[in-house]
Amino acid sequence: MRGFINETFMLKNETAKTLYGYIKNLPIIDYHCHLSPKDIAENRQFKNLTEIWLEGDHYKWRAMRANGVDERYITGDASAKDKFRAWAQTVPNTIGNPLYHWTHLELKKYFDINVLLDEHNWEDVWLRANEKLAQSDFSVQKLIERSNVESICTTDSPVDHLDYHKQIKAQDNFNVKVLPTFRPDDGVAITKSVFHHFIDKLSTITNRSIQTYQSYIEALEERIDYFDEMGCKLSDHGLAEVPFSNFTDTEIEAIFKKSLVGESISSEEERKFKTAMMIALARKYKEKGWTMQLHFGAIRNNNTKMFRRVGKDAGFDSISDQPDLGASLNGLLDQCEKNDGLPQTILYNLNPTYNDLVGSTIQNFQTEPGIKMKVQLGSGWWFNDTKQGMERQLTTLADHGLLMHFVGMLTDSRSFLSFSRHEYFRRILANLIGQWVEEGELPNNENLLKRLVENISYYNAKRYFKCD
Amino acid sequence: MRGFINETFMLKNETAKTLYGYIKNLPIIDYHCHLSPKDIAENRQFKNLTEIWLEGDHYKWRAMRANGVDERYITGDASAKDKFRAWAQTVPNTIGNPLYHWTHLELKKYFDINVLLDEHNWEDVWLRANEKLAQSDFSVQKLIERSNVESICTTDSPVDHLDYHKQIKAQDNFNVKVLPTFRPDDGVAITKSVFHHFIDKLSTITNRSIQTYQSYIEALEERIDYFDEMGCKLSDHGLAEVPFSNFTDTEIEAIFKKSLVGESISSEEERKFKTAMMIALARKYKEKGWTMQLHFGAIRNNNTKMFRRVGKDAGFDSISDQPDLGASLNGLLDQCEKNDGLPQTILYNLNPTYNDLVGSTIQNFQTEPGIKMKVQLGSGWWFNDTKQGMERQLTTLADHGLLMHFVGMLTDSRSFLSFSRHEYFRRILANLIGQWVEEGELPNNENLLKRLVENISYYNAKRYFKCD
Amino acid sequence: MRGFINETFMLKNETAKTLYGYIKNLPIIDYHCHLSPKDIAENRQFKNLTEIWLEGDHYKWRAMRANGVDERYITGDASAKDKFRAWAQTVPNTIGNPLYHWTHLELKKYFDINVLLDEHNWEDVWLRANEKLAQSDFSVQKLIERSNVESICTTDSPVDHLDYHKQIKAQDNFNVKVLPTFRPDDGVAITKSVFHHFIDKLSTITNRSIQTYQSYIEALEERIDYFDEMGCKLSDHGLAEVPFSNFTDTEIEAIFKKSLVGESISSEEERKFKTAMMIALARKYKEKGWTMQLHFGAIRNNNTKMFRRVGKDAGFDSISDQPDLGASLNGLLDQCEKNDGLPQTILYNLNPTYNDLVGSTIQNFQTEPGIKMKVQLGSGWWFNDTKQGMERQLTTLADHGLLMHFVGMLTDSRSFLSFSRHEYFRRILANLIGQWVEEGELPNNENLLKRLVENISYYNAKRYFKCD
Repeated sequence: MRGFINETFMLKNETAKTLYGYIKNLPIIDYHCHLSPKDIAENRQFKNLTEIWLEGDHYKWRAMRANGVDERYITGDASAKDKFRAWAQTVPNTIGNPLYHWTHLELKKYFDINVLLDEHNWEDVWLRANEKLAQSDFSVQKLIERSNVESICTTDSPVDHLDYHKQIKAQDNFNVKVLPTFRPDDGVAITKSVFHHFIDKLSTITNRSIQTYQSYIEALEERIDYFDEMGCKLSDHGLAEVPFSNFTDTEIEAIFKKSLVGESISSEEERKFKTAMMIALARKYKEKGWTMQLHFGAIRNNNTKMFRRVGKDAGFDSISDQPDLGASLNGLLDQCEKNDGLPQTILYNLNPTYNDLVGSTIQNFQTEPGIKMKVQLGSGWWFNDTKQGMERQLTTLADHGLLMHFVGMLTDSRSFLSFSRHEYFRRILANLIGQWVEEGELPNNENLLKRLVENISYYNAKRYFKCD
Repeated sequence: MRGFINETFMLKNETAKTLYGYIKNLPIIDYHCHLSPKDIAENRQFKNLTEIWLEGDHYKWRAMRANGVDERYITGDASAKDKFRAWAQTVPNTIGNPLYHWTHLELKKYFDINVLLDEHNWEDVWLRANEKLAQSDFSVQKLIERSNVESICTTDSPVDHLDYHKQIKAQDNFNVKVLPTFRPDDGVAITKSVFHHFIDKLSTITNRSIQTYQSYIEALEERIDYFDEMGCKLSDHGLAEVPFSNFTDTEIEAIFKKSLVGESISSEEERKFKTAMMIALARKYKEKGWTMQLHFGAIRNNNTKMFRRVGKDAGFDSISDQPDLGASLNGLLDQCEKNDGLPQTILYNLNPTYNDLVGSTIQNFQTEPGIKMKVQLGSGWWFNDTKQGMERQLTTLADHGLLMHFVGMLTDSRSFLSFSRHEYFRRILANLIGQWVEEGELPNNENLLKRLVENISYYNAKRYFKCD
Repeated sequence: MRGFINETFMLKNETAKTLYGYIKNLPIIDYHCHLSPKDIAENRQFKNLTEIWLEGDHYKWRAMRANGVDERYITGDASAKDKFRAWAQTVPNTIGNPLYHWTHLELKKYFDINVLLDEHNWEDVWLRANEKLAQSDFSVQKLIERSNVESICTTDSPVDHLDYHKQIKAQDNFNVKVLPTFRPDDGVAITKSVFHHFIDKLSTITNRSIQTYQSYIEALEERIDYFDEMGCKLSDHGLAEVPFSNFTDTEIEAIFKKSLVGESISSEEERKFKTAMMIALARKYKEKGWTMQLHFGAIRNNNTKMFRRVGKDAGFDSISDQPDLGASLNGLLDQCEKNDGLPQTILYNLNPTYNDLVGSTIQNFQTEPGIKMKVQLGSGWWFNDTKQGMERQLTTLADHGLLMHFVGMLTDSRSFLSFSRHEYFRRILANLIGQWVEEGELPNNENLLKRLVENISYYNAKRYFKCD
């Protein structure tokens, strides 16, 4: 594997190497991920490479299916070892895909395994990795610590008690900050069955009767106060589309009631309701000094046959489009801003074709003196979590906004081996800036360049999310 | 022309040169083109360069018009020689456009002419090329053979008798496989006058009375069976938009009847009808083991004045957009998949802005064990048949799917000199992969890289289309 | 600043340097800008760097806001010096943004100041620049002359008397051509209050009673004739969306009357009216031999709170999207063409995601013998006025049209220091072409390459706009 995953991986010029040197040892603030608080609290020890690497990783599942692998070896009842073999056989065929990089970065970084995984060497890799995983310094907490992680923000339901977070906080021998993130998706999805379950649970956990929209928002606000006490600094919304439609309070109350009694909600009513909720929640987030994250542009569960078989989040989601995104996105942010209720906001668009639209939109709302880039263009999300996707996001942001104030990378991952994606990002960042310098587009000013890459890798997130 | 069209054309690094060495002599499987079966069967001999190069080539026509050339010299009654001169005068002005590459590649490859065509040397080129075209080894069949072509899939109407295909098959001295492709566009276009002509012809050729949608589909299925006997392995659909709308069988029968009696069909009815037909045909394609091709995103005949003067396919078509493409595309494929009726499918989107949307969508439907990348992102189509277009398609596919299993290039051409586009593609492929290797993004593993470029250039198509 | 803004800035290879040598001293035809005719006529002398550099420059304002600067120092009542300091402090944070290039190019070119502006050296820069601005050879006319400008086309209302243009013309000691451009946006915006003000002013200036659409168009035509006498060669339309809908003359008269009496106009009526007006005006432009410019895809005044505070054109505009753009754009151009009323046209799309759509659309309408690229894809506009934006535009145009006939760069600026953007563009152009040559994609043919870069930098505009 000489010349591939080594010290200069992705660093194609001398300036890039220098710049990477400044940032490679900076701590990680992983402000958005899907790691299990339970696994962290219980300091889980994984039994084998399949458990830590393939369970729940729908990126790998999609690749295996495209390689013609039977579902049995993906989400089915095949043995852990057979599943690993099926993955290893797939790996050489992922050449060119980020999975090929991630796979070998993780093998090297965590297991010191330095081969190109394939159908020949898979068993050797399996044995060597499993041997390591059995050691106590491969527990979840040890993996986090050795990854130089300073803070982790998990993703949590408003109706979660956050007991695991309490447990983690109480553990003296584990000093990484693990904070909850407020993600009320089920509570916004008025046309789905999960909405009513959510209201029931919210009613129970807050011990409130929720018969009106007004009382619903109050109950949510109570949970926001609770999350805030628990150290929460961010909320997160997954939206198929950015909602926007003008509404009156009376309309929203009526729509909420229709939903409670099981009447059907029209698309226009749905849009009004979601707009109202986003504005109400945003105002509360702002009051708390939180950052609001909006993830939009995914179309989910597109394969009904497979959905029935393996359920959601199983690799059948993809990038979508939204007509009139410009009007909706500006409309929603403007309504928040009008009432002085626009919090710090990060916009993650899944469809990269909207990069320039979103990148120019953020600049319409940078209006809070003293806050640097209050509204951010988020790091390349999901299908954009690739070299190309990252470079596109960085270049777009540089064109429209101030790259210097970008809050940088997050893993968005369910895997405890994914912290290496911060390394991946930092290498790509250093390389891009280095290239601009070598080509004469940026001045070769050490002070300025060092500040730029250090800010994006660590200090901006620390400041923006008020980590201290 | 030293340093331009030579052995290392487009190969900018050493690895690229090595990789191109592996693939330059592999045979060509041209699985999608618009070559004339008649010309092949009759082994046409072209009288001059205008006949073989300018007739029907609307790419060149567009360039000539943009150069201010009078229509008389494009599709009008000017002499073949004057038309060629007008083209030659245009050529230097196409610098930067793929036409500039194609032109000089074809002059060199087929005629051993090694100059930059222009207003000064055009007459010399005209004479030299015409002299060659008069030789017997410049007949259509000889041109195909010298291009190292193994198989050709033409584009044919379901109501074609395929007599020329029979003639070609019967010719002992011509051993290239020439297979028909089933393209029922006229039979799907319910709102156009061609629809009724098509039904009439289908009724005649199948000797069936077509009074119901049910009988219509049965007649088409009979033709699919016939095409299959004739060696057909692919169908092809040209769609302005990907249709999707839920429907009932009763609705479709009613819409079909409205159409037969000449009543007007609404947009929504049109969408339902097209959805129903696509699903019905897809099921039959799957049964036959065919591959379904969907070409979408072209807006055609945009210049009414010129349409009245020179008709269709004359260079007045362009790239369009489709709001809510994500929902339609996933909806259509999902409906096919639900009934186990999704065949191997290749999606060609004309608007490159949808590359990521389509590239991520294909991965939702890779669910047939043993078939590698059952749903494919097609090679850069029409306006994307450029270096930039190809690199975009390859990079998008690498990001979302498995480049290793990509079925590769096709000419989509009406010209017997266009096989050089496979060379163009292979050079661009070798160069891109070579660049990734030289920049450390791929391991320099000979075995893996050789497999990658060979698969894409030849072996994947051979396997996927079951050529043997 | 060694190695940054110097003779080889942006020129990354030897061919690029040679090519830039051919064009660096060519005159500038700035065929689209927003310079003040009053400032030119009165040969304004700026008091300080804030006046000439920050007033009205909403690009800089957006950057300052994103840097957390208080609005007081942007559009508020802070002193000129304090505003400059706030900008200087922002500058290092714009690294990677085109502002960083423009800023240092302008400091160097106009003031011979060769430092990286920042929070330390700002006062020195302030003093040195202001000293120069006080000199008589830093007057507006001197700045224009030293920029090697041959012609300037300003942007003017149809109801403007063009008195400043007359004054400029009469000045013997200033020989740069300053011509008006006809921009009737207020007169097309039927749903806005400015529409009625516009009609009133038009009525007054033409001394006509405007009670019907027919009379309205006649009054506008009279103004077009007047602008034409004043040397006008271009019109310009800023359109949120490209309008297209079929209409009858009767409908348009009715809509116009509804508007006059204050009745509300539906979206569909608005679309019909705008379509009708565009077609009527286009016909008149064609008659005059003018070029019609269409700028589309901006969504404006998105921040209501800030709009109320600082008004329009203050940095709260961004990129938008338009569903079904392909149909609308082709529909509108086709209707013009049908009646032989399509003038020379330049299409500027703000959303770069439409580059390929627009780039392929122009080629549907290149139908006037003798005119080279009658319909043009305009230079990267506003948010695309960046290296990336320019390269995208050039590459798209090369893919779909004839780069050789591109009319090139314009400043679109309100600042008398922005002529350096032509230098910026020429460097980027030379570099891109040079790169293509060095990588073997273009032949290294001096004659051809020289013609290409010279045409785009100067000669095409001279020919296309009939400057003589």
